[in-house]
Amino acid sequence: MTEPLTRRQLPEDPRLRAFLPMLYVAWADSELRPGEIRALCSRIQREAPDERCEDLLGHWLDPTAPPSAEELADLLYAVRNSAHGLEATERRDLSTLGAAMARRAGHEPSAEEMAALVDVERALGLAPEETSARLLASARPDPAPGPERTVVDVATLREELDRPHPEVRREVLAVLADPAFERPLEPERAAYREHVLDRCRALADLGWGAVSFPPEGGGSGDTGRFMAIFETLGHGNLSTLIKFGVQFGLFGGSILHLGTARHHRDLLPVVGTLELPGCFAMTETGHGSNVADLRTTATYEPESDEIVVHTPGPDARKDYIGNAACHGRMATVFAQLHVGGRHHGVHAVLVPIRNDAGQPLPGVSVEDDGPKMGLNGVDNGRLSFDGVRVPRGHLLDRFGTIDDQGHYRSPISSPSKRFFTMLGTLVGGRISVALAGNAAAKSALAIAVRYGEKRRQFGPEGEAEVRLLDYLSHQRRLLPRLAKTYALHAALRELATKYSRVEVDDDRRELETLAAGLKAIATWHATDTIQACREACGGQGYLAANRFSALKADTDIFTTFEGDNTVLLQLVAKGLLAGYRRQFHDMGTFDLVRWVVGRAASDLAEHNPFVTRRTDADHLRDRELHRRLLEWRQERLLHTLARRLKARLDRGLDTFEALSECQDHVLEAAQAFVERVVLEAYDRWTREAAEPVRALLVTVGDLHALTTLETRKGFFLEHGIFDPTKSRAIRTLVNQLCGELRPAAGGLVEAFGLEPAVLGAPIAAGTG
Amino acid sequence: MTEPLTRRQLPEDPRLRAFLPMLYVAWADSELRPGEIRALCSRIQREAPDERCEDLLGHWLDPTAPPSAEELADLLYAVRNSAHGLEATERRDLSTLGAAMARRAGHEPSAEEMAALVDVERALGLAPEETSARLLASARPDPAPGPERTVVDVATLREELDRPHPEVRREVLAVLADPAFERPLEPERAAYREHVLDRCRALADLGWGAVSFPPEGGGSGDTGRFMAIFETLGHGNLSTLIKFGVQFGLFGGSILHLGTARHHRDLLPVVGTLELPGCFAMTETGHGSNVADLRTTATYEPESDEIVVHTPGPDARKDYIGNAACHGRMATVFAQLHVGGRHHGVHAVLVPIRNDAGQPLPGVSVEDDGPKMGLNGVDNGRLSFDGVRVPRGHLLDRFGTIDDQGHYRSPISSPSKRFFTMLGTLVGGRISVALAGNAAAKSALAIAVRYGEKRRQFGPEGEAEVRLLDYLSHQRRLLPRLAKTYALHAALRELATKYSRVEVDDDRRELETLAAGLKAIATWHATDTIQACREACGGQGYLAANRFSALKADTDIFTTFEGDNTVLLQLVAKGLLAGYRRQFHDMGTFDLVRWVVGRAASDLAEHNPFVTRRTDADHLRDRELHRRLLEWRQERLLHTLARRLKARLDRGLDTFEALSECQDHVLEAAQAFVERVVLEAYDRWTREAAEPVRALLVTVGDLHALTTLETRKGFFLEHGIFDPTKSRAIRTLVNQLCGELRPAAGGLVEAFGLEPAVLGAPIAAGTG
Repeated sequence: MTEPLTRRQLPEDPRLRAFLPMLYVAWADSELRPGEIRALCSRIQREAPDERCEDLLGHWLDPTAPPSAEELADLLYAVRNSAHGLEATERRDLSTLGAAMARRAGHEPSAEEMAALVDVERALGLAPEETSARLLASARPDPAPGPERTVVDVATLREELDRPHPEVRREVLAVLADPAFERPLEPERAAYREHVLDRCRALADLGWGAVSFPPEGGGSGDTGRFMAIFETLGHGNLSTLIKFGVQFGLFGGSILHLGTARHHRDLLPVVGTLELPGCFAMTETGHGSNVADLRTTATYEPESDEIVVHTPGPDARKDYIGNAACHGRMATVFAQLHVGGRHHGVHAVLVPIRNDAGQPLPGVSVEDDGPKMGLNGVDNGRLSFDGVRVPRGHLLDRFGTIDDQGHYRSPISSPSKRFFTMLGTLVGGRISVALAGNAAAKSALAIAVRYGEKRRQFGPEGEAEVRLLDYLSHQRRLLPRLAKTYALHAALRELATKYSRVEVDDDRRELETLAAGLKAIATWHATDTIQACREACGGQGYLAANRFSALKADTDIFTTFEGDNTVLLQLVAKGLLAGYRRQFHDMGTFDLVRWVVGRAASDLAEHNPFVTRRTDADHLRDRELHRRLLEWRQERLLHTLARRLKARLDRGLDTFEALSECQDHVLEAAQAFVERVVLEAYDRWTREAAEPVRALLVTVGDLHALTTLETRKGFFLEHGIFDPTKSRAIRTLVNQLCGELRPAAGGLVEAFGLEPAVLGAPIAAGTG
Repeated sequence: MTEPLTRRQLPEDPRLRAFLPMLYVAWADSELRPGEIRALCSRIQREAPDERCEDLLGHWLDPTAPPSAEELADLLYAVRNSAHGLEATERRDLSTLGAAMARRAGHEPSAEEMAALVDVERALGLAPEETSARLLASARPDPAPGPERTVVDVATLREELDRPHPEVRREVLAVLADPAFERPLEPERAAYREHVLDRCRALADLGWGAVSFPPEGGGSGDTGRFMAIFETLGHGNLSTLIKFGVQFGLFGGSILHLGTARHHRDLLPVVGTLELPGCFAMTETGHGSNVADLRTTATYEPESDEIVVHTPGPDARKDYIGNAACHGRMATVFAQLHVGGRHHGVHAVLVPIRNDAGQPLPGVSVEDDGPKMGLNGVDNGRLSFDGVRVPRGHLLDRFGTIDDQGHYRSPISSPSKRFFTMLGTLVGGRISVALAGNAAAKSALAIAVRYGEKRRQFGPEGEAEVRLLDYLSHQRRLLPRLAKTYALHAALRELATKYSRVEVDDDRRELETLAAGLKAIATWHATDTIQACREACGGQGYLAANRFSALKADTDIFTTFEGDNTVLLQLVAKGLLAGYRRQFHDMGTFDLVRWVVGRAASDLAEHNPFVTRRTDADHLRDRELHRRLLEWRQERLLHTLARRLKARLDRGLDTFEALSECQDHVLEAAQAFVERVVLEAYDRWTREAAEPVRALLVTVGDLHALTTLETRKGFFLEHGIFDPTKSRAIRTLVNQLCGELRPAAGGLVEAFGLEPAVLGAPIAAGTG
């Protein structure tokens, strides 16, 4: 392609030397354009009007015969050699550098020569300092050694994060650091299931399975402690977590909450030790979210005093049931109860499914759900019942029993209230999943932030490469998610504490609304955060050794189980429409809508916190402003939703149709509620935080609040609450806050207390 | 808890009978509130003032002794029995129903009695028709049988989608339908790698590996056909796809694009048949995105006429290299070339790494990257070289060679231009990954839409449950993503066609910008869509049999490899700043910024398409409006970005710092560019689509365009382009369009031509 060229000599005339840097840059950075060549030619000719100049121009500035790559490389090395040892001020830009090189060769450039150099530099259209730096940088210097110093009082922050039950958290993390609790990287499914069962036995041996059971069940009735154990196990192998949850939280919980003294006494002791592995068989292939329409039947037969449990078709198989494929000996089966020809709705019945040898009992069919996206250490399966008979006493009969005369009796006459009361006892599972999801988000952030602090890529010319976390885009990826994780932490811990203190017969509706909303938002946040963290770690993040693989696959179902998130947000909206005044789940939305329309109209008029167009940081960082903005958003969305629903009901649509038509609005209102709740809970937490970390937590809260407002800017602009200036000011402030929190990022994740042993990650351990 | 109650008798007086439905509802739907009891009591007493009434009130309306669950059940069955056989008009609401029941028992209610019934119904605050329907519905009816009829001319649509190379696509899908090409559900890694190698051999045996090679390399030089094969393989096992891509696209492509005739003649024939499995060893542990700073060296040694390839430290190991852990015999190694004491930048050198027995050659160290999140059928590994010597001829020397005199020569003198020209030849890989990502999104959507059409959950009282896809929220999840997949389809196919026609020496800068931008947006879209589809399939989506597991895990790295998406978008923005007028990758942003500032200021004044506040559908569905809005957004973001950069450069920041400070803005501008490009490409495609499907494709385009505008409403509101009314009108229209496209959804995915055999999904096959 290129013909051999006669090797060009470099000009020796010291005056011409001054032009060498520009000559190189002109050819090397891009092809020379005619204008550039003209600029060089005319100036050089004016400065060096003799035969050497002719020579130079002929050989080096002929557009038809550009210098070869090798000649250019020679030129570059000549420039670098000449520049070697010059002061920084002499290397500042190409004209200064050229002058210094001429001077070194014995020629002091005149004022005219200097002007010519500057002119040429300008004509080449260069950014002078940068170009000079690039030209002279033969290799990037190594970055300054050593890790970053943290600016955070990590010990104090960790104390804040560990409350309540700090001792439980440390104990659990210590157990997880035992290599026996590591997640195998490439487990073979059958062996993996046994491994995970063994891990659950080990946890049961520590007494952790029974913690929430009453003393007669082998525990201490400490729900808060149980939840702290569960949440912290969320930093470990999630198959172990979920198997633990299935056995002790769901199966055990169903006996605890739906059973009566007899069940507690007989079963909880063997459930808590895992002597009796069991299943929580609610979901069917055809019905998951719509529990009320489950099709499995449980029919009381007076002649035999037995209950007949039956699966009427393949759609009614119990599906995705943990412990069903291998280990479960008994199942809590949710079925439509029929007594004396009357249907009493969904009730739970204990059905033995396997004998001690592990064989399915007569009438019980088991299918394996097979490999799953994740959680393959849990043996999910399908259960079908062909007229399986159990004694009457197997009905978990706290909310509905069959008396000795064969009559159905319940402390709750209203069938719908009874149904939702039974489901409501399971709210602890939702809170637990939300806590574990947030724990998983913390694990992911701990890995990604540490990687972002170490890994460097690109940088200014001639300088060390820049840490990923020093890039605004990287901060934008990780820090708002870290802030939201902190905010959810506060909201979820508060909710768990509330739940652990609630009395059995208290009104749990508000708690249920909160649990539904926070579960949806926290588990979506986990999915989103783990994904962002994986991408932030690039190829390293894709290696199984770095844990994102397991985190992603294992948590993916969190958004579905214990209530599909989209369905849960609709429950939240219905709860809000009821204003907590009436029954949470009840369908009498009609009446509630009228009430809300009345209330919202008056409320909205009362508080408009947005009289100011201030855009200064003090104003924009005012938590009271954030709170009122999010509250206004919630109320406004609720108000307009109620109005839209009412218009549809008035037109003759039924509640279902009206809600369906407004479903996007329903979901948005529910999200707005959760956003406000989270902000307020976080605010309460930071107010009580210890002095040494309070200011930091306030800044974290600022970032969270302002990112939330930024995400919702469309809404606030649409409603005239933000003007464009304010909206832009918020974006700018979010960028600033990212920079402000950058030095604290390492400390903020270090305070999660996750040793590399727990994260199991080469990245986190510093070998990536 | 409840004491046994004397079983209450149902009132026999026909006048009282009229109140039974309300009596049931009052107790059953929620606890009776005092106001409700008073309403019932006073009305009933007025209507039935005798001892039977006392009796009724005493037994049924005593707030201190509510009826038992069993009594309520009896009451319900009594009402249902009485209502049995009544006309629909007689069951309309509770008062009408009560009247009909009284009439049936022999009592014609008077006008006063009717008024009383209506009053009570109102006092109970009920939605009359709904409550009556709920009361009388003992079980949901089964849904009407049979699948949905499609409203789409699927055959024609498929023809449109299959262009160009329809025969290739059908051929590839036929191969993928062979069970031998199924992705094993639970592959053991070592065996899986061999399985995938075998599949690649089978594809090579079909001649597909060499399709893009010239005839002397065993192919037909048909890049377009090769890309069509690759894209369609994206519907199958993605490990096979990526191994295929590594061998023929990357390893083969490096020889094809960076090598010269000798390399083509000697190597391509054995590369295309997979006799010589090879690696593309560019990325290092410490440098992925920043290729220019790779640390591996290739030093020419004149004495031996050899090139010495060396890995200076663990950070310089070649990492994540496909085919490296097991099968590769040779690697294209990217290294800093040094000739005669001069550094000439990154070049590619062919290095044999294993002997025929599969043992690493002396000086070559191999580590296995171990298990990964996905793509475990591909043997990624790390390669290190300890002064490994190869003959001079192993330099892939199209853009830089060492002549017989040991001098470096290149047809491109400028080192930076040479570097980006070399990288630019690899743009085909980016386009291919984007195509495969969109293919994966299509697979996911095909599964989720089919599931959404079949699966039912919840529904109006007493009616069949509703198909998931009939819910607005479900439509909102799937249909805009389906529309975007169609839009990306058009843009990517156009780009691939352009690429396949481009001549070797054409200016590829615009193509490179497009490829970088579309790769980023398409692969993020794939990740997002697969996630949304998994969630839309609930628990079914989590089972490995339904493919989301593999789709998610295998495509996750698409956002990272062939260029990290965030880095790519920054390249796009730089390309835009240059306005394609100057070298794409060149750092001389300074000059360009000045140019853009000038241009953007004048351009913006010229077109303001937003003089109208119209919010009617004709206006909002006008494609020219969409185009101008997205173009305005792009120009505006570019203009303000340029202004911000200039302000920083004027303040003395260097280009790197200035770009870093504006990085969020940089990314937004790049996204805006891609959004406009995609819309325009889709518009061109639909204009030329066959008549029977054009209107449908226009509606799909409307949904895509309006969803894009909705997503960006914050921007348009901030800039006063939308007023709140318009913004709201767009939301409403998006909802409407979802409903409009709902009946076509099945046809839109059926036209992808993916048989259940290819999807390998029980859901898709109809057994879920």
